[in-house]
Amino acid sequence: MGAVIVRAVICLVCLAWPGATAQGAPSLSYLSKVTDLVLNHEPDPLTLSPTPSPSLTFTLPPTIVPNPPTKYGVVLFPAFEMLDVFGPLEVLSWAARLHEKLDLYLLAETLDPVTTQPQSAAMNTFNSSFFPTVNPTHTFDDNPELDVLIVPGGLGTRNPNMDRTLQFISSTYPRVQYLITVCTGSALVAQTGILDGRRATTNKASWDSVIVNGPNTTWVPEARWVVDGNIWTSSGISAGIDATLAFVAELYGKENATVISEYMEYEWHEDSDWDPYAEIWGVV
Amino acid sequence: MGAVIVRAVICLVCLAWPGATAQGAPSLSYLSKVTDLVLNHEPDPLTLSPTPSPSLTFTLPPTIVPNPPTKYGVVLFPAFEMLDVFGPLEVLSWAARLHEKLDLYLLAETLDPVTTQPQSAAMNTFNSSFFPTVNPTHTFDDNPELDVLIVPGGLGTRNPNMDRTLQFISSTYPRVQYLITVCTGSALVAQTGILDGRRATTNKASWDSVIVNGPNTTWVPEARWVVDGNIWTSSGISAGIDATLAFVAELYGKENATVISEYMEYEWHEDSDWDPYAEIWGVV
Repeated sequence: MGAVIVRAVICLVCLAWPGATAQGAPSLSYLSKVTDLVLNHEPDPLTLSPTPSPSLTFTLPPTIVPNPPTKYGVVLFPAFEMLDVFGPLEVLSWAARLHEKLDLYLLAETLDPVTTQPQSAAMNTFNSSFFPTVNPTHTFDDNPELDVLIVPGGLGTRNPNMDRTLQFISSTYPRVQYLITVCTGSALVAQTGILDGRRATTNKASWDSVIVNGPNTTWVPEARWVVDGNIWTSSGISAGIDATLAFVAELYGKENATVISEYMEYEWHEDSDWDPYAEIWGVV
Repeated sequence: MGAVIVRAVICLVCLAWPGATAQGAPSLSYLSKVTDLVLNHEPDPLTLSPTPSPSLTFTLPPTIVPNPPTKYGVVLFPAFEMLDVFGPLEVLSWAARLHEKLDLYLLAETLDPVTTQPQSAAMNTFNSSFFPTVNPTHTFDDNPELDVLIVPGGLGTRNPNMDRTLQFISSTYPRVQYLITVCTGSALVAQTGILDGRRATTNKASWDSVIVNGPNTTWVPEARWVVDGNIWTSSGISAGIDATLAFVAELYGKENATVISEYMEYEWHEDSDWDPYAEIWGVV
């Protein structure tokens, strides 16, 4: 319970006063000071004070890496799986609120809205119209500087005309610090050869159809996510949330990831070996 | 394990052949027939066959309610919380793939893209640019027929200029079968008076600032979600996924909700009393 109070106090302050930067575990003297301030002010943690006191500025200890990633790119294509994108982005948006300046680049072939609708009628058996669209911020040709590239999955990964997307992944990977795949996004990355000689995992319900794309990859059948060098591959859909929380823990500090999971009221699976879906979908 | 196989078989068939409709638990003779077909064809569950056999058409038993909801509306406003929207929509999009024709209406004041960016600079402490935008399909004035209205939360619920949104919720509620709130979305609904005399819950980190909007509501501090009549209110952010899975179980059948949670690789909290966040955020 003590740790919970400490975490809550850190968050309240980070949210309440723009001068605060939450980087790693704070010192005890800092926490004592902050506790008094919080108890006196009691801000709503989701409402940032519109009139912050300029005197309330703090610097928390640095992150566990000197210069953590700040520029995140997400590849969008028709029939991407919506939670593959918005699960990880929800996690990172909290880091962008609580921790430091983060920039998001949503990348697609053009700036036209990208639909979640499958391009084949046979992939929409009941003729449902249940397909939100999302707007890219940049095209693949804009070639922005990125620190992290996120590749989601979805029915669209089976599109035979993904050349431009594969080309973008292939040319961007050497320029980023980290590559993260969610769900069947690993099928796209595998097609570029980037996963050759690596350990990786993917969606368990689509296991066979994904792994054929990476014959030179060591596919790990029972894993919530797998880290090999600077490549993080996660299992199906919701696993992207756990992998991103683990990524935040690794690069911005464990405390930060825990607080984010608590704001999200998300039961974070911290163990990358946790994977009941491998058995459910017959992969093991 | 038997149940798992049965579930997998149902899914494989629903996904593989457009003629199939999955409504509730199938008969044993149906399953036997389907099992043979699946074993012979082994389709990738996320890849719907582009050339389905026209002879492979089945009708599964009906849902547990005669005419389950098919028209879902989601209220969008600036600075909505992204997972409040895309968590429930991910669940429902699987029902739209696996079960029957569902239609989605994303409703906002205008058809302009709706941003997740807070409108106050003070709510973006680090000046992050981490704000995806989503496109409405309809305006509030379009007044489409809906079966279910979903109201997400987010920093935008604190916007003092939400009159048109509140008016839309207020005028739409009497015309829908069900109202679902996620996170601080309940603060908006409470302001309309719709929650008066009802039991409800909300985000635990923002508890105090939400419940003041519903002085005549019985707020339940420890709950993943609460059902009172035709109103489903859920706790913070990720709780919207559990509430929507419970909603699917209630109206389309438990088996369907379980399969969806397995495709999503999401550890479904089936117990509405499960709520560690009430203690973490000091509500109990």
